[in-house]
Order: sequence, then structure tokens, then C-alpha cells
Amino acid sequence: MREDLLPIEKLIAYFQKLGGVGYKTAQRYAYKIIDMDKEDVTEFADALLDVKQNIHYCKICGNFTDKEVCNICNSRKSDIICVVKEPKDVFAFEKVKSHDFLYHVLHGCISPLENKGPDDIRIKELLERIKGGNVKEILVATNPDVEGEATAMYIAQILKPLNIKCTRLAQGISMGADIEYADEVTLNKAIESRTEM
Amino acid sequence: MREDLLPIEKLIAYFQKLGGVGYKTAQRYAYKIIDMDKEDVTEFADALLDVKQNIHYCKICGNFTDKEVCNICNSRKSDIICVVKEPKDVFAFEKVKSHDFLYHVLHGCISPLENKGPDDIRIKELLERIKGGNVKEILVATNPDVEGEATAMYIAQILKPLNIKCTRLAQGISMGADIEYADEVTLNKAIESRTEM
Repeated sequence: MREDLLPIEKLIAYFQKLGGVGYKTAQRYAYKIIDMDKEDVTEFADALLDVKQNIHYCKICGNFTDKEVCNICNSRKSDIICVVKEPKDVFAFEKVKSHDFLYHVLHGCISPLENKGPDDIRIKELLERIKGGNVKEILVATNPDVEGEATAMYIAQILKPLNIKCTRLAQGISMGADIEYADEVTLNKAIESRTEM
Repeated sequence: MREDLLPIEKLIAYFQKLGGVGYKTAQRYAYKIIDMDKEDVTEFADALLDVKQNIHYCKICGNFTDKEVCNICNSRKSDIICVVKEPKDVFAFEKVKSHDFLYHVLHGCISPLENKGPDDIRIKELLERIKGGNVKEILVATNPDVEGEATAMYIAQILKPLNIKCTRLAQGISMGADIEYADEVTLNKAIESRTEM
């Protein structure tokens, strides 16, 4: 960061580092900071430092936490582990609140294009968890794209000899979607996995 | 701000306060902070505090500055004052770099709908500047909308007895615009203000 920038230009430059933030938006954020209460800005700055200093990966599931072991791993009892790609996927499941799984965050998917193999994501840690405890089912909830599917297939394959049930999120038409606009692959999956009423 | 929030949830809440930032975007920003270098985050937090502590209005023109009088007012000699609505308009003119005006930031426009009259914006300060120094021309560069036009007309009116030239930014077709899609008011202005070639 250049040292001779005005404080406001420097702040704008930092907002632009957040990703997907252009100059105009960063400028708007910076002006908003000038308009905010001093107390709020101080707490904002503290929150930034707090997150950077205290947030790290849970040593069991790999989700973000401010403790050694996250709240979910610490307090929840379940024999189902839901395997997701990123911490924000855990947030998505937790919002639903319909099931009490444990989670396992892979921090990525197998992707030959990005030179990412099974050893680059947290699959080894998943196997150790399975060997260590009473896990009955692994629900693979990676995204239904090429990388996510490849990762799911790989996990299913290595779980077969361990005699652990491996499931995948159902694929089909989204609730509220318009069949007219559903893509062919989705429609095909929905027909294949049709359920009896 | 609730005290029992996780550090990351607290940071997300602060990002949402920036305006126009929803939960998903704020979450993305927060995750980006976790991925950033510790040094960068520290400097980001410092920049926030620095802006809040050191940025205020220039006592002459009303633009943001970290000194008592801003760099432009301090160093530039001109007998033309360009009157704008907001500090970011000054940035826009400074980017062009074709003219050496001084500026006067109104911090708003006259707007009966928002209950804003001439006394709520920095018109009094403008008159004092005119009385104090050798000003030859006031270029009113408020936006060409209802509030901006009303403000421009008001300023022109009060400048008449002072015998100061009052000009307005030319209105017409934007460079690179398609005449086919120009709105009627703009096209009309462009015809009225046509120039000889």
C-alpha cells in the first residue's frame, strides 16, 4: 500500500481488496464510514482485528470457530456427518435447522483444472474421523457441479470398503422453480429420481 | 450491537451497515478478511480509525480533508468557484484535470420533499466566500435533476444583485451515447443549446 495516500484514498483501496468491490462502491463505503458514529467505527475496526486474531479452523470439522473445537462438534451428538465444500455451506444447513448432523468442511473440491487432488482437501481428516468414532452415514453435500460430483464420487469410492453408508443430497427441480425453464440435466435427474406419491 | 455474537457474525453485521450490502455479500467480505494477511487487516483497521479521526470538512470549501484547509483551497489560485452537491463530485472534476477551479461543496440540494431549504445547505458560506475574495464566476455543477436545477436557479437568483457571472454545466447528449435512445428532455436541451461548427 502506498504511504503517501490520503487516509480516505487508503481506506478506499482497502475496501477494494474485499473482492468484487470497484472504486465507486469502495468510495461509497468510505463516505459511509465518515458519516458513521465514532463508536461504531471503533467497534468495526475491533471486529476486523478480532476476526483475524481469533477465528481459525475447528480441529475436528474444519469450520470457522473462535475456540479449539467448534460449538457444533463440542455439543452435538450424531452419527451422520454432512460433508460440505466451504464453511458457508454449514451456515446454509444450520439455517434450515431440520437435522442434527455433524459437519466436515473439505475447504475445496477435487479439481484437475485447478490442480487440486484428494490430498489437497480435507479427505484424510474425514477418514480419520470415521475410524475414530461411531459414524453411520456420510451425507455428501458438495455442489452439483463437475468438481462437486467428482469429489462425491471419490468419497463414495473410498468409503465402500469401510462399510459406511454414503448418501448424496437429492437432485431435482427446486421448489418454486418453473419447469419450463429447468435445464435438461436437472429435468433428467428429476425424472430419474422421481418418487411415488 | 449484540454482545453475544461470534466475532465473525459481528463483523458481518458491521459490513451490512455500509449500506447496500446484504447478508451474503457481508459474509463474503468477512471470509475475505479471514483469508487476508494479518498485516493487511491491521492496516485496514487502522485506515478505518484514521479516516474517522482525521477526516473532516475543509472550513473553506466543505470538501473532505485531513487538514484545516484542504490542499485545493490551500494551493490553487482561481477566480472561478465550481459549486457541487457532494464531495464525490469534486473527485469527478479532479479526475478530468482540464480546469483549475476552486470548489464549494453544498452537502445537499434544495429539496422541499426532504424538507431541505437554502439554509440547510452551504449557500450562506458560499456568499461569505464571494464577499471575502475576488470571485469572478460561479459555475453551478449540481446534478441536472429537479433538486439540482432548483438549487442552481436559487443560486443564480441570489448572485444577480452581486454582479457575479453565474454559469451552469452545458446539457446535451453524452459523448458516445446513442441519439436513438436519448430521452426527450435531453434531446430538447441539446437542440436548444446547439453550437456552430
